[in-house]
Amino acid sequence: LSGVFEGKTTGTPISILIPNQDANSSHYEPLKHLLRPGHANATYLAKYGLFDYRGGGRASARETACRVAAGAVARKLLAHYGITLSAYLAQIGDRPLSAEDPLPIDLLNEAIALGDSLGGIVAFTLSSLPAGLGDPIYEKLEANLAKAMLSLPASKGFEIGSGFSCAVMRGSEHNDLFESGSLQTTTNHAGGTLGGISTGMPLVGKVAFKPTSSIRKPQATLTTTFEPTILTLPEGSRHDPCVAIRAVPVVEAMAALVIADALLLNRCATL
Amino acid sequence: LSGVFEGKTTGTPISILIPNQDANSSHYEPLKHLLRPGHANATYLAKYGLFDYRGGGRASARETACRVAAGAVARKLLAHYGITLSAYLAQIGDRPLSAEDPLPIDLLNEAIALGDSLGGIVAFTLSSLPAGLGDPIYEKLEANLAKAMLSLPASKGFEIGSGFSCAVMRGSEHNDLFESGSLQTTTNHAGGTLGGISTGMPLVGKVAFKPTSSIRKPQATLTTTFEPTILTLPEGSRHDPCVAIRAVPVVEAMAALVIADALLLNRCATL
Amino acid sequence: LSGVFEGKTTGTPISILIPNQDANSSHYEPLKHLLRPGHANATYLAKYGLFDYRGGGRASARETACRVAAGAVARKLLAHYGITLSAYLAQIGDRPLSAEDPLPIDLLNEAIALGDSLGGIVAFTLSSLPAGLGDPIYEKLEANLAKAMLSLPASKGFEIGSGFSCAVMRGSEHNDLFESGSLQTTTNHAGGTLGGISTGMPLVGKVAFKPTSSIRKPQATLTTTFEPTILTLPEGSRHDPCVAIRAVPVVEAMAALVIADALLLNRCATL
Amino acid sequence: LSGVFEGKTTGTPISILIPNQDANSSHYEPLKHLLRPGHANATYLAKYGLFDYRGGGRASARETACRVAAGAVARKLLAHYGITLSAYLAQIGDRPLSAEDPLPIDLLNEAIALGDSLGGIVAFTLSSLPAGLGDPIYEKLEANLAKAMLSLPASKGFEIGSGFSCAVMRGSEHNDLFESGSLQTTTNHAGGTLGGISTGMPLVGKVAFKPTSSIRKPQATLTTTFEPTILTLPEGSRHDPCVAIRAVPVVEAMAALVIADALLLNRCATL
Repeated sequence: LSGVFEGKTTGTPISILIPNQDANSSHYEPLKHLLRPGHANATYLAKYGLFDYRGGGRASARETACRVAAGAVARKLLAHYGITLSAYLAQIGDRPLSAEDPLPIDLLNEAIALGDSLGGIVAFTLSSLPAGLGDPIYEKLEANLAKAMLSLPASKGFEIGSGFSCAVMRGSEHNDLFESGSLQTTTNHAGGTLGGISTGMPLVGKVAFKPTSSIRKPQATLTTTFEPTILTLPEGSRHDPCVAIRAVPVVEAMAALVIADALLLNRCATL
Repeated sequence: LSGVFEGKTTGTPISILIPNQDANSSHYEPLKHLLRPGHANATYLAKYGLFDYRGGGRASARETACRVAAGAVARKLLAHYGITLSAYLAQIGDRPLSAEDPLPIDLLNEAIALGDSLGGIVAFTLSSLPAGLGDPIYEKLEANLAKAMLSLPASKGFEIGSGFSCAVMRGSEHNDLFESGSLQTTTNHAGGTLGGISTGMPLVGKVAFKPTSSIRKPQATLTTTFEPTILTLPEGSRHDPCVAIRAVPVVEAMAALVIADALLLNRCATL
Repeated sequence: LSGVFEGKTTGTPISILIPNQDANSSHYEPLKHLLRPGHANATYLAKYGLFDYRGGGRASARETACRVAAGAVARKLLAHYGITLSAYLAQIGDRPLSAEDPLPIDLLNEAIALGDSLGGIVAFTLSSLPAGLGDPIYEKLEANLAKAMLSLPASKGFEIGSGFSCAVMRGSEHNDLFESGSLQTTTNHAGGTLGGISTGMPLVGKVAFKPTSSIRKPQATLTTTFEPTILTLPEGSRHDPCVAIRAVPVVEAMAALVIADALLLNRCATL
Repeated sequence: LSGVFEGKTTGTPISILIPNQDANSSHYEPLKHLLRPGHANATYLAKYGLFDYRGGGRASARETACRVAAGAVARKLLAHYGITLSAYLAQIGDRPLSAEDPLPIDLLNEAIALGDSLGGIVAFTLSSLPAGLGDPIYEKLEANLAKAMLSLPASKGFEIGSGFSCAVMRGSEHNDLFESGSLQTTTNHAGGTLGGISTGMPLVGKVAFKPTSSIRKPQATLTTTFEPTILTLPEGSRHDPCVAIRAVPVVEAMAALVIADALLLNRCATL
C-alpha cells in the first residue's frame, strides 16, 4: 500500500495488507463462551476482560502471514549482501528429520485419525553472514533472535549453536578453534555469534513448537463463567495437526527480519 | 548515586556504581594479541577493529554484577506484589540436580584438575504471578524473557514450560486443563504464559550455559595477525570452572527485571 | 481493520485504513523531474536517490489524516479522564485571531488571487488535565509535545506557556504563584508543565506553520538534473492557500496522542 | 568509566561520572517543606508524593553538565564529518545580541540588584551538514531537535529557520529558491531541513529560556501542606540571574547529540 514506487522502496514505511478472503467467523460462534485449553483466550480474558473468539483473534497463527510478508522484504536485503537463509523441520513428534527428508505423512495421518496434534522443532541456518553484526550489550544478535522466535505463536524454546547440549560439554570441547589464517573455526558450537556479535560462521539455531492446541478430540474445559463443560471443535473450523510444519517459513522470516535490522545498524558501527 | 532519597525512590533514574577494587589488568597483558577460542574478542575485533583485552572487557561476566544490582531493585517491586522468584542449578555437566541438591564439588574438582570447564542449566520459577502480564503482539512476556536470558554471557538456549520436550508431546497431552472454577490448570506445560500473557500459573523456564571459555588447558589459537600459537592462561587471571553456578542469581535478576517491566506496563492496560 | 471487536478495543493494535478515493496521479506527472521549492522532494532525492512525485508522496499533508484518525482514538481516553482539548487558528498572515473569530475569507481570497499562500499559528489548550503526567528526565511532557508538533508537515516552531515571550520577562513576573490552598496558580506562564510534568493547570501551547509551499504563481527552480526551469503547478493539482487552517484538528490529534501516552504511562508511576 | 580504551572508543557504552565536589545540601534544608514557584518540586510532589529538595534534585540545571559531557563525545563525530556547530546568546531580556556581542553586564547587574532574573534566547547553527540526515516520518530531524531542546530545564520554545515569523510570510517569499546547479538555496527560511531531512544548508534554530525561577526577591508561596508563607532563598544557595547564558553550551551539546544520532542512522539509508 505504501513505501514502494515504480519497483523501488522510497525510504518511507512499507505497508502491506493481506485480506483474509476465506474467513467464516460463524464457525467460531460456539466457542464464544468457552475457555480453550492451551489457547490465549483465557489470558486475553484475564487481562482485557474480553476476547475476540473468531478464529483465535490476534493470537491466531494466521497473524504469521504478516511476518512472512515482511520477511520477504528483509530477504531482499540479505540477498543484496549475499547471505543465504533456510529453515527446515528438524523434528516432528519423536521423529528427527534432516533438511532433505520429506514430511512424514504417516505421523500426520495418525495424529489426524486420533483427533490429536504433534509438536515439532524447526532448525534454521544463515550462511555467508559477515562477522560483526549485533551489539555487545543491549542488542545482542542471539538475544534479538531469541525474542523474535519466542514471539511466534506456539514456540516454547530457542537454541543457538550447541544449545542445551552445551551443558554436557567440556570447555576444551565446546570452544571452537580457529582455522589457520582466518576467523573461520573448525567447529561451530557457538552457532555463529560470540558476545552478541556474529562471527562470520553460519548462524544456526532451533525453535521448538508445541503441538497445536486446537484438537478434534473432545476436551474437558470451563465456560467463561467457570462452569465445567466439554469443548468439541465446531465443524468448519480449521486447524493444522502440527503448527511446526507451517512455522518453517515463519522462522525464516523472523531470522531475516532480525538480520536485516542488524545489517542496517551495523552500518553505523564503523566510520 | 541517584534516584533514591531518604530511603525512597524519587521517580528519577537510579544509578548504581560498583567499583572493581580487586582488578589487576597486567595479568591480561599476555592476551593482548591473541584470539581467544570461545571468547568475544575475535568478534569485537572484527566489528570495531580493536578490543579491550583486560579481563575480557565488556564481554566479561563481571558485567552481570550490574544486572544483579538492578534486579535487586526490581525484586522489591515483585515483593510488593507478593511474587516469589527463585532459580537453581538444574544440571551441571551431565548431572541433573534438584533445587535442594548441593553443588557437586566432585565434578568441579575433576574439571579443575583437568584444567577444563563445565556447562550447566539454570531453572527459574516465579510464583504468585498475576494473570495478565505481557502483551499479545510486540512485547510478549516469553519473548522478553527469552531476550533477557540470551543477553547473558555464555547462554545458549532458553525454554519456557515444556520447552524442547513439547516436540514429542501430543496436543491432548500438552494442553493444560482448567481446574474446577478457576483459571488454574492441573498441569503447567505452558509454563505460565499463553499468547504472550501470564496465565497466573507459576512461570517456569530454563537457560543453558556453555562451559566457561577460559580454561587452563593450553589451546591452539591464532594471534590477532592470524599467526598460529598456543594460548595458555596467564597466572593470576581468574576463571570459574562453571559459569552456570554464578549464573543462578543473574537469571533471577533478569527474570525480576522483565517481570517488573511487565507489572508496570500492565498498569496501563485496564482503566 | 483490527483491534476492535463488538464496539470495544481488544488490547491488540488498532489498524485503520483510509483509502484516497479521489486521487489522480497524472496531474503530478509534469512535476516528475522538478525540484519543488519549499518541498521535501529535493531532500528525499538527496537521501534516497528517488522520490514519489505523486501528490507530494509521503511528505504530503494528506498523511495527517492518519494522525487525526489515531487522535480520535486517543481522545476517547482523554474523555474518560474528563480532559478537554481544543485548538484554534490564532494567527493567519499578520492577522491575530481569537478562538471565536471566523476564518478571514478576505485574506484567503487575496492570497488565492495572487496565486500565493499564507502562514499561520495554531494555539491549543488541554483543560482538566491531572497533575503528574510526564517524566522528569527522558520523556518530559513538553519535550514530547514539541516532537509531536515539529513532526507535522510545514511546522516551524513550538511554544509552551509564555514561549518566546518569556525572554523579556523577569523571574518575579514569570513565576506562577500558588493560589491559596492548592497547586493551582494565579497565572500560567509555565503553560501547564514544570520539569517535564503536568502541573494540573491548563496545558497551553502554539505551533507555527509556514505558508503552503505549493503556489500557483510560477517560480524559478531546477530540474532533477539541475537545469534551470520554471515551475508552474499543473491544472488539477490541489493545494490549500493556508495549511495552518487544516492543521487545527491535526494539532489537536497530536496533543491527544501525546497526552494519552502520558496518561497510560503515568499509571505505572505510583503503586 | 567505560567504553574507551587506550584513547579509542571500544563500541561499548561510554560512562562518564562528574562528582559534584562543591555541594552543601544543608543550604537547601529551609526549602524542605516549601513549594517553590516556577520550580518542578510541586509537580514531583504531585506525581511521586515526595521530592529531593537538595539543590533542586534532578530538576536542577546541574543536570545539564552530563549533556555537555555527552555532547563533547558527539562533537568528535561531527568534526569527523567536517560539521561545525556553534550557539550564542541571541537575546537577554529585551536586548537582542549578535554572536559577537559581549554579555551585557549592565542588564545582569540590574537584575542582581533587584534580586530578580532574566530570560533569554539562544540561537544555534550547524554548518557543512550533509543533505539527507533525518527520516521522513517517525524521526524527523527538526522533531528530534525540538524534543532535545524542550527537554532542557527552563526552555519554553523552539524554532527552526523562519520559526514563528513564518506566519507573516507569503509562500512566494518563504520558499527557498535553488541556486544555479546545486541543492543550495539563495535564502534559508527552511532552516536546513525539509520534510524531516537535512537540505545541506546550514541548520539554524532558536530556543527560548525563561528567567531563572530561583530569585532573591521574597515570593509568596505555600508550604507542602498548603499553608501560605514567604519564600526567601537561603544564604549560600546558588542561582544564576539568567539561565540562558549557561544554556549556550548545553544547546550546542543537544544539537550535537541529535545530529550524531542522525549521522549514524543515515548510514543505514543507502546501500
